[in-house]
Amino acid sequence: MNLRLTLYLVGILNLFLALSMTAPLVVAVIYQDGTASDFLVNIGLVVFISLILIFTCRSPGREIRHREGMAVVTLGWVSAGFFGSLPFYISGAREKFIDCLFESFSGFTTTGASIMTDIEMLPQSILFWRSLTHWLGGMGIIVMTIAILPLLGVGGMQLFKAEVPGPVTDRLQPRIAETAKTLWKVYLVFTGAEVLLLHLGGMDLFDSFCHTFGTLATGGFSTKNASIGHYQSTYFDIVITVFMLLAGVNFALHYQALSGNLKAFYRNSELRFYLAIFLAATVLVTWSIWRSNVPGLGESVHQASFQTASILTTTGYATTDFEQWPSFARIILLTLIFIGGSAGSTGGSIKVVRIMLLLKHSYRELRNLIHPRAVIPVKLQGQIVPDGVLFSVWGFFILFLSLLVVASFLLTLMGLDITTSLTAVAACIGNIGPGLGSVGPSENYAHLPYAAKAVLILCMLLGRLEVYTVFILFVPEFWKK
Amino acid sequence: MNLRLTLYLVGILNLFLALSMTAPLVVAVIYQDGTASDFLVNIGLVVFISLILIFTCRSPGREIRHREGMAVVTLGWVSAGFFGSLPFYISGAREKFIDCLFESFSGFTTTGASIMTDIEMLPQSILFWRSLTHWLGGMGIIVMTIAILPLLGVGGMQLFKAEVPGPVTDRLQPRIAETAKTLWKVYLVFTGAEVLLLHLGGMDLFDSFCHTFGTLATGGFSTKNASIGHYQSTYFDIVITVFMLLAGVNFALHYQALSGNLKAFYRNSELRFYLAIFLAATVLVTWSIWRSNVPGLGESVHQASFQTASILTTTGYATTDFEQWPSFARIILLTLIFIGGSAGSTGGSIKVVRIMLLLKHSYRELRNLIHPRAVIPVKLQGQIVPDGVLFSVWGFFILFLSLLVVASFLLTLMGLDITTSLTAVAACIGNIGPGLGSVGPSENYAHLPYAAKAVLILCMLLGRLEVYTVFILFVPEFWKK
Repeated sequence: MNLRLTLYLVGILNLFLALSMTAPLVVAVIYQDGTASDFLVNIGLVVFISLILIFTCRSPGREIRHREGMAVVTLGWVSAGFFGSLPFYISGAREKFIDCLFESFSGFTTTGASIMTDIEMLPQSILFWRSLTHWLGGMGIIVMTIAILPLLGVGGMQLFKAEVPGPVTDRLQPRIAETAKTLWKVYLVFTGAEVLLLHLGGMDLFDSFCHTFGTLATGGFSTKNASIGHYQSTYFDIVITVFMLLAGVNFALHYQALSGNLKAFYRNSELRFYLAIFLAATVLVTWSIWRSNVPGLGESVHQASFQTASILTTTGYATTDFEQWPSFARIILLTLIFIGGSAGSTGGSIKVVRIMLLLKHSYRELRNLIHPRAVIPVKLQGQIVPDGVLFSVWGFFILFLSLLVVASFLLTLMGLDITTSLTAVAACIGNIGPGLGSVGPSENYAHLPYAAKAVLILCMLLGRLEVYTVFILFVPEFWKK
Repeated sequence: MNLRLTLYLVGILNLFLALSMTAPLVVAVIYQDGTASDFLVNIGLVVFISLILIFTCRSPGREIRHREGMAVVTLGWVSAGFFGSLPFYISGAREKFIDCLFESFSGFTTTGASIMTDIEMLPQSILFWRSLTHWLGGMGIIVMTIAILPLLGVGGMQLFKAEVPGPVTDRLQPRIAETAKTLWKVYLVFTGAEVLLLHLGGMDLFDSFCHTFGTLATGGFSTKNASIGHYQSTYFDIVITVFMLLAGVNFALHYQALSGNLKAFYRNSELRFYLAIFLAATVLVTWSIWRSNVPGLGESVHQASFQTASILTTTGYATTDFEQWPSFARIILLTLIFIGGSAGSTGGSIKVVRIMLLLKHSYRELRNLIHPRAVIPVKLQGQIVPDGVLFSVWGFFILFLSLLVVASFLLTLMGLDITTSLTAVAACIGNIGPGLGSVGPSENYAHLPYAAKAVLILCMLLGRLEVYTVFILFVPEFWKK
């Protein structure tokens, strides 16, 4: 591990973070909400620390291997979470620093779990910064997907073969930067499109930006206490449902589609499975709420499709308090928490392609019992999936579940009930936001004990970084030359 | 698939079932509880049907391949569950046939979930039959472990290498019968020992037998409404805790230990891990209940060790209503539901050795990320675990989880709440018995809708037969020549 190089790169990243804080500064100046000086102090501080890092760790050698790549990603998110919390603290939006950290990590990891009890009371600049952390987190995820996921044996498979280093390449390719730029363009195009559509529908520009940031990063922070339910607008709900679903798709596919290759969409088996899950869940949830408490079929389809898209893509926006829905509808949403978006999307959780591989693999094992001497491959998109990839998916899955169990233990230890503990942890590892019980869609995370918030911050980070990326830091061999 | 041969063997099995029904018949005669004629009718019916099967499917060819082995095991358990329910129905112990089926399947699968609301009102012969179904189920598990588990790629590894056919052998060995007899002797020795110890401690002989059956099969049916809590006796609790723990150990290890090879115990890594889980869970649960509501440390250790052993071994006896314990203690018990006994024991659920392999595998994947080109094997007991075994464990795990999800969906569909649905399904697939919510340790399954009972019967069966054994029947290739 080249620590100097790692810290140098983290310093550079923090300079970009400081730069991005000029956006809420501009908002503060426009709205005259009295936080402009807070942001100036903040930017100064971040720049100062970045420069110290950059100058003390200069000329560190140029070779970024994948160990350094993982360390940069982890430290990058940790430092963004930390410095991103300062605006909340300095402006006095929340008194306790742990609450500010929670909100900032929730933002950068695009989780969307909030400790703010009255969002509408916050200054515009703070609201803007809060939503912007989602959007920046989303950009980070895109780079991570290209640079790190292939090393984890999954995700890269979905991207353009040539541009992505396989698991045997030990040096990060310069082409990663090009791919990242290409995909960021897609991200920008979608951002522009959604802002425009929301604004044309009558949402004010400020809220259009904030909700777009929350949608495309599959984050979920809103500027309204009642989330998207505030507007009671079918138009907004449809626009946001569509963009949530788009954000849950591999961005490389979007790029191909925008370049004219629409067939790529149709041919992608992960996308088909993702849409099949969305449709199946929507039908079942619609049926469940329709036969119980919601008035008409149309309204049921509307509510069901929005909530299903919101949870499946790990966004977490709400138009209604689904905690009140029948247990069948709720258990379906609960299951979606563990699926998440596609690989290469900004969505979190386990990811559709991994779920596909897990299911295909278990069916293969059944067939293998009948033909014990046959070698039956697991195929994805017509191609044989190497054993190494399957092993890696399994390893991820068990680490994910182990984290869920251990973190839930810790939360119950603090006196929380089992439902709240399990769903809060699942909603944070999966980067969804709302859970069930006392952290349901009409509640927030403000009332949790501070120690529970600390545990959940760690869960959000681990979930966002595909668990592996953080856990690997605790394997002694990682630090050896 | 040789269906004639399968049905012929099932016929033979049912003759043994009829034979075993003479035991409750004797009890009925001794206690004069008025059910003797019911049992006679019953035995006659089972013998009649068995003979039809045997004579219509005679001379079927002698070669039992593993397909037939699996089909016999599945159909054997199904027919035992079906015919075993008749005594409950004919004697009028329960009015609805589905309730009788539930009780019988719960018995033969050694689950111990009950729909009986007042156990102490039942005739002695029915109580005896109820507990005997556990004990017979336990004997069945021992044969299945020897004959079927090796084909599933796990379990056989734990048994004597020479006596167990590896996954490549396509024909069931005659030595299986010998191994089964050897292990049944161990089962009989333990049965004698526990009956004696309970009886010497003052439990009457009838109850000593019934509770011994429930313990050694890791079943959990009691003859008392308050389960073992009825006796309020530390002595009985300790005896039963010890025998539950013994029943959760690989019976092949017991055989070796009884033959003088005590080192086998110490050297077995699954056993060490099993005991480590038991001790760790006991310490944590003790601490949790001690600092809350139970009076002294001694009493806390006592309650914690009994409940931990009961859930870990998938027995399900209760000495107290642990539904009232703090959520930390409850979530630990909930986690134990998914671990279960050792391979080769009468315990159910995922099994300790599989959990070990899952954890070892995910740590291997972490190390592999650091050394992408190195081949790092997963080892168990100093030996490299073949990839095929790991794949098989993974396949099992996913089928287990998929079943949990789908069955819970069905239960919520019938209007049950999420906690009850999830824990009832988990407690039935894992063959434990009590869950949480409205199927907790002081409740029973009587109030569930009939459709929910049907789903849970299937769960018990699937869990007992390692999921694979039943699912395989639905793969079209299974039925081809």
